[in-house]
Amino acid sequence: MTFESWNPLNDPPAFPAARYASVADRLKNVLKTRGDVLLIQAEAVVALEAVAASVARPGIKVLNIVTSLYGGWFGSWLRRAGAEVIELRAEPARPIDAEAVEASLKAHPEIAVLALVHAESASGIRNPLEEIMLLARARGIATIVDAVASVGGHALNVDELGIDITVIGPQKSLAGPAGISALSVSPAAWKLISQPGGPTTSILSLLDQKAWLDAGRGALPGTTAPIEFFALEAALDRVEAEGVDNIVARHARAARATRAGLIALGATPWIDQVKGSNLVTTVKLPDGAHLETALAAAAPLGMELSAGVGPGAERLVRLNHTGRRARFDIVLGDVLAYGMALRKLGFKADIAAAAAAISFHHTD
Amino acid sequence: MTFESWNPLNDPPAFPAARYASVADRLKNVLKTRGDVLLIQAEAVVALEAVAASVARPGIKVLNIVTSLYGGWFGSWLRRAGAEVIELRAEPARPIDAEAVEASLKAHPEIAVLALVHAESASGIRNPLEEIMLLARARGIATIVDAVASVGGHALNVDELGIDITVIGPQKSLAGPAGISALSVSPAAWKLISQPGGPTTSILSLLDQKAWLDAGRGALPGTTAPIEFFALEAALDRVEAEGVDNIVARHARAARATRAGLIALGATPWIDQVKGSNLVTTVKLPDGAHLETALAAAAPLGMELSAGVGPGAERLVRLNHTGRRARFDIVLGDVLAYGMALRKLGFKADIAAAAAAISFHHTD
Amino acid sequence: MTFESWNPLNDPPAFPAARYASVADRLKNVLKTRGDVLLIQAEAVVALEAVAASVARPGIKVLNIVTSLYGGWFGSWLRRAGAEVIELRAEPARPIDAEAVEASLKAHPEIAVLALVHAESASGIRNPLEEIMLLARARGIATIVDAVASVGGHALNVDELGIDITVIGPQKSLAGPAGISALSVSPAAWKLISQPGGPTTSILSLLDQKAWLDAGRGALPGTTAPIEFFALEAALDRVEAEGVDNIVARHARAARATRAGLIALGATPWIDQVKGSNLVTTVKLPDGAHLETALAAAAPLGMELSAGVGPGAERLVRLNHTGRRARFDIVLGDVLAYGMALRKLGFKADIAAAAAAISFHHTD
Amino acid sequence: MTFESWNPLNDPPAFPAARYASVADRLKNVLKTRGDVLLIQAEAVVALEAVAASVARPGIKVLNIVTSLYGGWFGSWLRRAGAEVIELRAEPARPIDAEAVEASLKAHPEIAVLALVHAESASGIRNPLEEIMLLARARGIATIVDAVASVGGHALNVDELGIDITVIGPQKSLAGPAGISALSVSPAAWKLISQPGGPTTSILSLLDQKAWLDAGRGALPGTTAPIEFFALEAALDRVEAEGVDNIVARHARAARATRAGLIALGATPWIDQVKGSNLVTTVKLPDGAHLETALAAAAPLGMELSAGVGPGAERLVRLNHTGRRARFDIVLGDVLAYGMALRKLGFKADIAAAAAAISFHHTD
Repeated sequence: MTFESWNPLNDPPAFPAARYASVADRLKNVLKTRGDVLLIQAEAVVALEAVAASVARPGIKVLNIVTSLYGGWFGSWLRRAGAEVIELRAEPARPIDAEAVEASLKAHPEIAVLALVHAESASGIRNPLEEIMLLARARGIATIVDAVASVGGHALNVDELGIDITVIGPQKSLAGPAGISALSVSPAAWKLISQPGGPTTSILSLLDQKAWLDAGRGALPGTTAPIEFFALEAALDRVEAEGVDNIVARHARAARATRAGLIALGATPWIDQVKGSNLVTTVKLPDGAHLETALAAAAPLGMELSAGVGPGAERLVRLNHTGRRARFDIVLGDVLAYGMALRKLGFKADIAAAAAAISFHHTD
Repeated sequence: MTFESWNPLNDPPAFPAARYASVADRLKNVLKTRGDVLLIQAEAVVALEAVAASVARPGIKVLNIVTSLYGGWFGSWLRRAGAEVIELRAEPARPIDAEAVEASLKAHPEIAVLALVHAESASGIRNPLEEIMLLARARGIATIVDAVASVGGHALNVDELGIDITVIGPQKSLAGPAGISALSVSPAAWKLISQPGGPTTSILSLLDQKAWLDAGRGALPGTTAPIEFFALEAALDRVEAEGVDNIVARHARAARATRAGLIALGATPWIDQVKGSNLVTTVKLPDGAHLETALAAAAPLGMELSAGVGPGAERLVRLNHTGRRARFDIVLGDVLAYGMALRKLGFKADIAAAAAAISFHHTD
Repeated sequence: MTFESWNPLNDPPAFPAARYASVADRLKNVLKTRGDVLLIQAEAVVALEAVAASVARPGIKVLNIVTSLYGGWFGSWLRRAGAEVIELRAEPARPIDAEAVEASLKAHPEIAVLALVHAESASGIRNPLEEIMLLARARGIATIVDAVASVGGHALNVDELGIDITVIGPQKSLAGPAGISALSVSPAAWKLISQPGGPTTSILSLLDQKAWLDAGRGALPGTTAPIEFFALEAALDRVEAEGVDNIVARHARAARATRAGLIALGATPWIDQVKGSNLVTTVKLPDGAHLETALAAAAPLGMELSAGVGPGAERLVRLNHTGRRARFDIVLGDVLAYGMALRKLGFKADIAAAAAAISFHHTD
Repeated sequence: MTFESWNPLNDPPAFPAARYASVADRLKNVLKTRGDVLLIQAEAVVALEAVAASVARPGIKVLNIVTSLYGGWFGSWLRRAGAEVIELRAEPARPIDAEAVEASLKAHPEIAVLALVHAESASGIRNPLEEIMLLARARGIATIVDAVASVGGHALNVDELGIDITVIGPQKSLAGPAGISALSVSPAAWKLISQPGGPTTSILSLLDQKAWLDAGRGALPGTTAPIEFFALEAALDRVEAEGVDNIVARHARAARATRAGLIALGATPWIDQVKGSNLVTTVKLPDGAHLETALAAAAPLGMELSAGVGPGAERLVRLNHTGRRARFDIVLGDVLAYGMALRKLGFKADIAAAAAAISFHHTD
């Protein structure tokens, strides 16, 4: 009847209903929205699947912008739920052009919903959210934005941009837990969700969550995993102490310094700062260099370089400056580790110039 | 660039792939199976929804035994996926009779799958799993068992009983985290799941998880919430230190003592020990007693009595002796708090006799 | 260069100096003092040793009231530092009488300092602090109170009582960490401490800590163990949420119920409620009962009865209702476990009456 | 009676006596000794004070080598306990020469005990432990080594070197908790400690701890702070996973890279690698540079440079590569931050060359 081992993760109490609503409110500040914010007790990809399942219906036409595997999955969920999906693909591992979006919207005036990923962590690119939002709003099109890999790394003013559904996860730039995700829902989005035919009594049902809102948020909407919520509160404490705008600025600084360092090294960032993510920078390996060998060459320095994921990203090396990694020393370490790996493989790399560039960029 | 606040829940590292497989293996010992065990990164109700979505197809006939809201939900998921569902309902808040199951199976010889909940935490009842499994096996019917509220509280030998899919959660008798669930899958179940038409690229897809098995379990199947996994490891450490059979015995002792105490009090347990759950005991309020008043009367003693949930359970009071609550002092406290509440409401309750009964039962 | 294992206790940041002072201020509220509060980075017995070492000098006469081993140790530390110690011993495991204190003070009008333990956790007794303080104040005698086993369990208004030095630890009624202790210091106490000859540059030096105060508390006074401080903050969060007066009331209720339960059982509490501790109740084993056998008889019920410690306490059984244990269910469990142990040893014990008495006391 | 707030640091169980002894044994492996290892429930400076208090006596002559404030304190504790102390001071912030030690030993043949600090974290220097041990052993002199700032950073084979008392803390290179310290004690040291006159019943008494050894280590020697012990176990898990020799190698690499980087920068490390600490590197500010301004100039880069402490160290800047900071990226960040600070103050600093030097040193 005794428990021999102890671990501080044991036995948290149930997370109080009153604090659950408060967590949602604190996330409103992160997203800069006065609309509704829902919490999903699962990783952010589940929130995205729930959005597709809850919004799509037969007869609804969606422009789905695909710039990674995630976008492809989103299209499959939309189609599974009966929507007609017009897929607009960028070149592999490249952001979409706003012009292509505009052309597509003109060609399909019956499009009612537009979905895109803001930034892609697999390839380090970023889509032109602001311009696309202008196009969508001008046409009264509902918008769904996967901001999982951009929140906290880029300005994301949901109400100012007029995004209808924004999906985020706390585990990236906010350095929080991975088992909860969240989304903002505008009145226009609720209209779509409330149309007959959507899923109910399901992890994929946003309508289920509406009951929580409609009941005044006084009870928990289902079983919660308390440790995740306590961890999310801890993350929000940090986010509020630093300030979300400061967090964005920190990521932008890390991204600029990383790209400047790579250029000084003699390497070519896959994408420039304007079209790039602030959470991840990618760089294309020189021809003839073997990817696994390059990653392995960096490992003894203790830096975690990784490979790009998905079509077009196979020869990209990812430098991750997300969350707690958006720091001077880690940017330095990653860029120089990449440089040392290049040298080991027989390529040139100007370690010295890279370090100088990073130091000066970070001091501005 | 500094982080002012600190919380030990911050910043766990990614959970290592090698340990993920080891967690699954440790759960095999809990379930006493040599078959496959999958982990679902969400609460157990999601694992149940995934099972229904992954197994059901048009043309498959399922006998779905309903003894609570959960059973009803399971039927709705089966139907959504196109299965023909034959629903067998027990009387409200009562277990099913094996005879009724047998009659139903005889009436519908084309039934291919049978689903039931082992024990119900909302009403404290337990279905006759062993007898139903004999009926199903004699007919070659695949079986799905929701053991979320019974694992660790009742003997559950998956391979010996021949259950095809068993769904569990660590947050009840194992006193673990709520954000992960698990299920065992037999070869026969894999055959059903592998038939064309099941969901893929989805939180509800068991087929997705098959890829993890087929690849030798060397990589993580999707994003994991590391804190949940570290907490699950801590729970398994405890479970293995105490021994799963000892945990079952502890819950059985707590259940017997609770029912003996209630009887000595002069109250009537809703269901006897044979048909009851070992995790939760329910007792029916006397006519004329107001439920909320009764629960409130127990609160000053610091005990957490709660109301039954679902049809037939509206006037049940739940005494929860699950996990760390399967202890002498908590059983005593709960039963006596219920007795004090009865007295406060003007009913008789023999506090003294109840305490004596519990003490003697617990000393056996 | 990687760290394989993870534990949430790893790698706390240094505890910020600004919060260190805030912790001291929060403890002032617990002690109800506007005077200085110092923190000692060690268990409370070290704080007591430091007080003795810092206050005692050749030429100072101290009345040291001894009601346990701790009091004896305190006397040895006073003597080691050169003070003349007049020892006033109560009968073994009994509180001192205020009359005896008065007589001693009259007999030794040159006494400058009086030291006593407020409550004793080894024997469950309590000394008449209020009366003794009146005697001391009337004579202008400086007072040192070991309140480690009484803070949070008994009213302790340091300024109202006029205590000069009060030593506490957070690990008992406050349910906090054991590696920090604290003490209040009045201006009169600082005068004693500041006399030439006291220790400096030592864990035992309170004068060292004065430097921290004198410098405006802007820097940490030495190396701190950050986890202990974060844990103390967590404890203070709980203490402030419940309220220190409510915590005292909860302990008083637990103590009254425990004694009423023992009496109803047919057992004899070692000391009555008026002279007893609210954190621990002791009961004397009947003649002929074997102590270890009695404790072992309670163990299968999962309750932690323990043996009294020190002269006169050898045949006492301790029921611990401190901190998180000051609860109805634990009081019930402990008293009934003691009753079941008595029965097992062949003595009578009215389990039923005890439970009824506890329930009624706890419902008041 | 409920506790609103939750924190994973709350409510650890008491640390089991059986594991306490096991922790001591695991520390024997760290120290490479088969002798006794004692644990002190306080920061390492308390263990040092306890050693001085327990070993020194009137009539014992100690050669105390002073290379920092700590050494000075140690002398004061020795004198307080009655020993005759011969102080041998190095030049400010410089290591002692073995020749000076030899001369002193020759001049005072009656010296019975020799005490020194292995490495100094305030100035980044290291004393020639191996040579001094040869001198002491040749004369049968008992040795006391403060290895708090060297353990895990330098080879420390207690039995091979023949050190009689070695004091360590887990909070530096082992990245563990700060509230426990430990020491090894040889049979010769026990003889000194056991001579009449040492402190008993005191945090400063090693003799008290002997009772724990003599009783077979079956009970806890006093109250322990459980969180500290659980944290120490977590640290030992990591230490054993990485291997203590690998930890030393990692610190040595970080130290060499730091010094190479500083030299390439154009700066002058205070001391060379041979005489320097592997945990901390110091560098002397150029004349005319203002220390606080230099530290402040590095802060925006998020690096934590700090000022040297003590005589001779006033104009030193400390680069801390201890424990988790013994990493390529942190070494890079610290050295380059120092370089950027120099530039900001108008001095030259070759950022590029420094980065190259560090990268090449770290890749060897």
